[in-house]
Amino acid sequence: MAMTRDDYFKYRRQTLDALKNASIAVTPAEEDRIEIADFGLDEFEKTGLGILTYVNTDRVCAKELVLLPGQTCPEHQHPSVDGAPGKEETFRCRSGEVYLYVSGKPVAQPKAQPPAGREKTYSVWHEVILRPGDQYTIRPQTLHWFQGGPQGAVVSEFSTRSTDENDVFTDPDIQRMPEIAG
Amino acid sequence: MAMTRDDYFKYRRQTLDALKNASIAVTPAEEDRIEIADFGLDEFEKTGLGILTYVNTDRVCAKELVLLPGQTCPEHQHPSVDGAPGKEETFRCRSGEVYLYVSGKPVAQPKAQPPAGREKTYSVWHEVILRPGDQYTIRPQTLHWFQGGPQGAVVSEFSTRSTDENDVFTDPDIQRMPEIAG
Repeated sequence: MAMTRDDYFKYRRQTLDALKNASIAVTPAEEDRIEIADFGLDEFEKTGLGILTYVNTDRVCAKELVLLPGQTCPEHQHPSVDGAPGKEETFRCRSGEVYLYVSGKPVAQPKAQPPAGREKTYSVWHEVILRPGDQYTIRPQTLHWFQGGPQGAVVSEFSTRSTDENDVFTDPDIQRMPEIAG
Repeated sequence: MAMTRDDYFKYRRQTLDALKNASIAVTPAEEDRIEIADFGLDEFEKTGLGILTYVNTDRVCAKELVLLPGQTCPEHQHPSVDGAPGKEETFRCRSGEVYLYVSGKPVAQPKAQPPAGREKTYSVWHEVILRPGDQYTIRPQTLHWFQGGPQGAVVSEFSTRSTDENDVFTDPDIQRMPEIAG
């Protein structure tokens, strides 16, 4: 079952409120193209994020990512495509707190829990905690996932070109498609 | 005569205050590496800008640029280097107002005036006014310059790798060197 139109507008409003609370100015035209991504799982409040893409050229992409409290962007990586290196991303926390997990030495007591019922699709547990002003760069082909803290989070992403259709998710149920009802 | 240490710290403080007023979180380590760029002209309040570089990898760069009221980043372009396309930049205004000039149809009554005595080194007059939430993408090899409005401005820059030493300035007096005294 796809997201309802009412849900879409509710989540878009929450995304815009979070950006406003982080003092990030958004134009009316940008408000209309906020993406509410639920990765085809239809459990947006658990697995999903709000996305405002500022620019996405052949070479450079910049976005704001908005996470609700405890909301998870699921585990994935950015593979090489046709011999070109995969997407490189830097995440910079603007407000709230975000728990980021990447390949490497696992943490003993992670701050985040994967969405219930999907634990087996989360395999990397090296923990990076980002608070406002903190950032972390993810090289291509590095498995990663992240979750908003108790107050949610706004995270700026600076990257090479974004080609969501190339992302490889650990969870086979995931379809990386924008869910815009209506 | 190079910038004095006192001036450097004064301008760094002003840059940090502008970032704080724009609700942009900066870590203590980042405070220490704010760049106060005067382009070798030793007239920072007229020609210059404060720069916080978040990340600059082989592929992606992101910065905050801070302009004092009426302060100008002088005219330049980003050429191809060794056959690789030049730097591509997107400027997004976060606070204040910025007057950006690029190649194209000149405006009749520009909002900005070039720094006194350097008028002849400003040749492009197509005007783009950016207010918070507005942005503009500059393709490689496009001459451009910009100036802070009456309250100054904070501008995010999303770009390909930044290699300042390759920038080509219209003003032959300019040396693109960080001026950090002490």
